[in-house]
Amino acid sequence: MTETDQLLDFFLATDRLKHIARENRVLDGSRHETVAEHCWHVTLLALTLADAAPAGTDIDHVVNLLTIHDLVEVYAGDTVIWWEADEAEVAAREQEAADRLFAQLPDSARPRFAELNAEFMAQETVEARFARALDALHPLLMTWGTRGAGHVRKDLTVERIVAKKQPLIGPFPALWALAEQVIAEAVARGLLALS
Amino acid sequence: MTETDQLLDFFLATDRLKHIARENRVLDGSRHETVAEHCWHVTLLALTLADAAPAGTDIDHVVNLLTIHDLVEVYAGDTVIWWEADEAEVAAREQEAADRLFAQLPDSARPRFAELNAEFMAQETVEARFARALDALHPLLMTWGTRGAGHVRKDLTVERIVAKKQPLIGPFPALWALAEQVIAEAVARGLLALS
Repeated sequence: MTETDQLLDFFLATDRLKHIARENRVLDGSRHETVAEHCWHVTLLALTLADAAPAGTDIDHVVNLLTIHDLVEVYAGDTVIWWEADEAEVAAREQEAADRLFAQLPDSARPRFAELNAEFMAQETVEARFARALDALHPLLMTWGTRGAGHVRKDLTVERIVAKKQPLIGPFPALWALAEQVIAEAVARGLLALS
Repeated sequence: MTETDQLLDFFLATDRLKHIARENRVLDGSRHETVAEHCWHVTLLALTLADAAPAGTDIDHVVNLLTIHDLVEVYAGDTVIWWEADEAEVAAREQEAADRLFAQLPDSARPRFAELNAEFMAQETVEARFARALDALHPLLMTWGTRGAGHVRKDLTVERIVAKKQPLIGPFPALWALAEQVIAEAVARGLLALS
């Protein structure tokens, strides 16, 4: 197999993300969002909310991290934040999926993807953390971001949302302020209970 | 309206791209691809085929250009390459759509988007040209990239495809070689006629 064929096979394998439905819906609620759509939209969110990142954050790098951040789902599928899954188990499954996917790449391209993915998973750089915060914020905007509309979620409460999302989004005050605004509006409209 | 509300309204308006179907289908042919999915997938294509860009090309910048390149479709809709539309008319409609969309942004964020969009439309930088080449290559990969499968296109011929795509993809030899390979395989399998 030529290097070009390896690149092509890797790339075509990622088409799978157009067939995986996320838990959240698109903005008008008409259907679930695909993982591929989320990946694009959250990179656009990075460009939109770039000023919410700490000074010196490399936004281009955040965009790259978000472009690849869900590739592991090609083989590992989506893990919903409310499932209370074992985090270590999820991380192990996602690492296995990453290794399997990136093994299809030629040596010339593998490090580029493996390093971006490892950086996102390790959550040590400010770029990886800001990317993860946007990733956690995005479904809140999709569900309740429309002032006056939004979906009722009887299975969730503010208490549960804050417990899950604040550790991820909280370190970036402008992002967390936006999350709190969206959550408060959902409560005011009776779409979401406090506890 | 606060700056945050302006950013949010802009961002939520872009959800529209999840409701616009492109002419090409997803890889297994089961449905049309959404513009949002295409936008993500073509940024991933840039990272996958980064080595096909001329030395010195800023791939991070190509990724940013591709992230925003179809935002004009929020108001202008998709223009299919085979429609033989008046190019100047399409460009004018897309510029009007861009102005309308970016007018929703606060002053702090508008230049970032307006400049990326203007650069992509002007097609003067190597990054804008490489981005456009990938944009033109992507639907070929979606339609016939799978060795052995792919869709029959009775409305297209190799002659028409080459006339439209070579000016865009041809300047990047490795990308054009891939396009030619995919087209040749489609012809060999009877999915596409020569003329």
